[in-house]
Amino acid sequence: MAEFKEATVAFGVLNETSDTESRVALTPDIVTRLGRGGVSCLIESGAGAAAHYTDADYANAGATVASRDEVIARSDALGFVDRPSAGTVSKLRAGQWVIGMLGSFTDADYVASLGNAGVVGVAIERLPRQLSSAQSMDEMTSQNSVMGYKAAILAADAYGSFLPMMTTAAGTIRPAKALVLGAGIAGLQAIGTLRRLGAVVTAYDVRPASKGEVESLGAKFLDLGLDFSAGQGEGGYARALTAEEQAAQQAAVDEKASGFDIVITTAKVPGRKPPVLLTRAGVAGLHRGAVIVDCAASDLGGNVEGSTVGTTVTEGGVTIIGAPYLASGVATTASNLLARNVADVLAHFVRDGRLTQVPGEELDDALVVAGRAEAPAASENQEK
Amino acid sequence: MAEFKEATVAFGVLNETSDTESRVALTPDIVTRLGRGGVSCLIESGAGAAAHYTDADYANAGATVASRDEVIARSDALGFVDRPSAGTVSKLRAGQWVIGMLGSFTDADYVASLGNAGVVGVAIERLPRQLSSAQSMDEMTSQNSVMGYKAAILAADAYGSFLPMMTTAAGTIRPAKALVLGAGIAGLQAIGTLRRLGAVVTAYDVRPASKGEVESLGAKFLDLGLDFSAGQGEGGYARALTAEEQAAQQAAVDEKASGFDIVITTAKVPGRKPPVLLTRAGVAGLHRGAVIVDCAASDLGGNVEGSTVGTTVTEGGVTIIGAPYLASGVATTASNLLARNVADVLAHFVRDGRLTQVPGEELDDALVVAGRAEAPAASENQEK
Repeated sequence: MAEFKEATVAFGVLNETSDTESRVALTPDIVTRLGRGGVSCLIESGAGAAAHYTDADYANAGATVASRDEVIARSDALGFVDRPSAGTVSKLRAGQWVIGMLGSFTDADYVASLGNAGVVGVAIERLPRQLSSAQSMDEMTSQNSVMGYKAAILAADAYGSFLPMMTTAAGTIRPAKALVLGAGIAGLQAIGTLRRLGAVVTAYDVRPASKGEVESLGAKFLDLGLDFSAGQGEGGYARALTAEEQAAQQAAVDEKASGFDIVITTAKVPGRKPPVLLTRAGVAGLHRGAVIVDCAASDLGGNVEGSTVGTTVTEGGVTIIGAPYLASGVATTASNLLARNVADVLAHFVRDGRLTQVPGEELDDALVVAGRAEAPAASENQEK
Repeated sequence: MAEFKEATVAFGVLNETSDTESRVALTPDIVTRLGRGGVSCLIESGAGAAAHYTDADYANAGATVASRDEVIARSDALGFVDRPSAGTVSKLRAGQWVIGMLGSFTDADYVASLGNAGVVGVAIERLPRQLSSAQSMDEMTSQNSVMGYKAAILAADAYGSFLPMMTTAAGTIRPAKALVLGAGIAGLQAIGTLRRLGAVVTAYDVRPASKGEVESLGAKFLDLGLDFSAGQGEGGYARALTAEEQAAQQAAVDEKASGFDIVITTAKVPGRKPPVLLTRAGVAGLHRGAVIVDCAASDLGGNVEGSTVGTTVTEGGVTIIGAPYLASGVATTASNLLARNVADVLAHFVRDGRLTQVPGEELDDALVVAGRAEAPAASENQEK
């Protein structure tokens, strides 16, 4: 993005705060950064409060603080932590851009609603993560990293003993034994944080490539004695296992899990119900006082059979924390990283000071899911 | 304590669980340990549940699980996390022993009520901590250590950013800057845990001797430019400062605190209102999103002006967690250590298979605050 003296693109961010969301898609330092690239920022009053950014912080950085309707009316593009509600979509105008996690893998109707409104929909969940030019836009990586960190902190807080080994006059406390299931970005960050706290960590992932990553963090790789070679799927995620493979994996994990004090599960597959890694039998095999943090928990289930959103304690005294909103729990840092991701996606589309699609360009083709420009005419979706 | 084949002393522990207490003064491994020394154990049904010990765990270790009244009736000595309530004291019989944190420094009436009931009161808060023979009985040390650990975990959980430095594709997150006020056992454990998590830690204590301890943990000692030499008080605690000294300290701490993200205060002085280390002005100087954990918080105030038990957020966006019950939040380990402490105090008094006082013996003289044996007759408080 070249430097522009005068802003030619107006970028707006709304307040998405709710019971489970404290993040905001714009932070004051990103206002400054975007300003240098010819993008002026508008933010809904109060949008950053839950992440500890005040209206004054944004104003001081050069943003315009305004009402929700005014931000919508005056913005060429709107950025989201999540995606605009149907009510917000109804207020958008043709040619306006929306950047967010649009749910395009699972919700075709929603994407169609953007297209019908003439809105250009940029779906961050479609980011080709392996492209080096896309790394600073990679919201899944940045937010999963925060999630993995928070999962380890939550587990430490819920566990009734120390994570590190302690030698005291009243006896020696052995270190906690932690098992991390799913060694993607979140899992690796959980491993690192648990290790920092002194736990002895073991980890498992269906992708054979993750063994080296796990071991490089000082954790042990759990060998289930199963071969799911070619476990690496598209976009850097694990592929889905067959029903037989999944059953074999569950039986093996259930058996191995019984010796652990803490289990953190992080296996989300975009656009699909999360795989069950630990069944009820596996949970029942854990000792009283053991703690499970299921980062994939949702109303449709999670990585742990019987987990729901929130905290439950089983009859066997195992605490299960179903925690899909963990990144929001580290709101300041999560917003910092996310705002940078969203801003870099925006900046990718700011060409010669205008929001512009280039059909055939790899990122453009991957990200634009609604209001896509026709191949020969590269400028028809521009506004202003 | 010599080994005895048959139990000659019955030791009972009651259920002290409440909203703020999950610990128990006896754990199954201590049942086994005491059994080898001729002490049989009784425990009230359900007493260990909140610390993840079941009645079956105790029974398997050889304890008798019984009703509250039965435990009281059949025990020669009762051990407590805290101390028996007035209602429980009214059920005790002459010659019975009570071991716990009796509050003898501040509550003479309570101690007198034990004496009037003919009960032998052993006050663990009176332990001469520097005696090497007393170290395994040192409940203040073991529980303060747990408290310091938990304070760091709580702070990490409440803080909206990472504690460690993180370098990501979306930017580098600087490590959190933490300030620990009071570098006793709790403070040192908080320093160690914050350092494990990657925070940059500074600490302060009125005792000049603590500088070396702080630095040995990799933290920086905060130099206030004040001289409170001879800051070391009795029993290894800090002495109380004069009003002028305290005001000078507060002004200096308030000024220095403003650059920190996390502040943990741990300055408790037994039997006195905790000293205010950080005033309202100091809290107001912290940035939005900063987190304070005040381990000395109580209904009478804490180390932070305006702190109360529980979580409050100031107008300036600073979260203050008044947390006097932190050891209870790590109930399994805290109970393990505490049970060992209490059992070793008990074992000290088991002489030739009987509960016996030896007037003139250093620990006996320090610990027995009610029902004290006369100097010439060492056996009059024995039962059975």
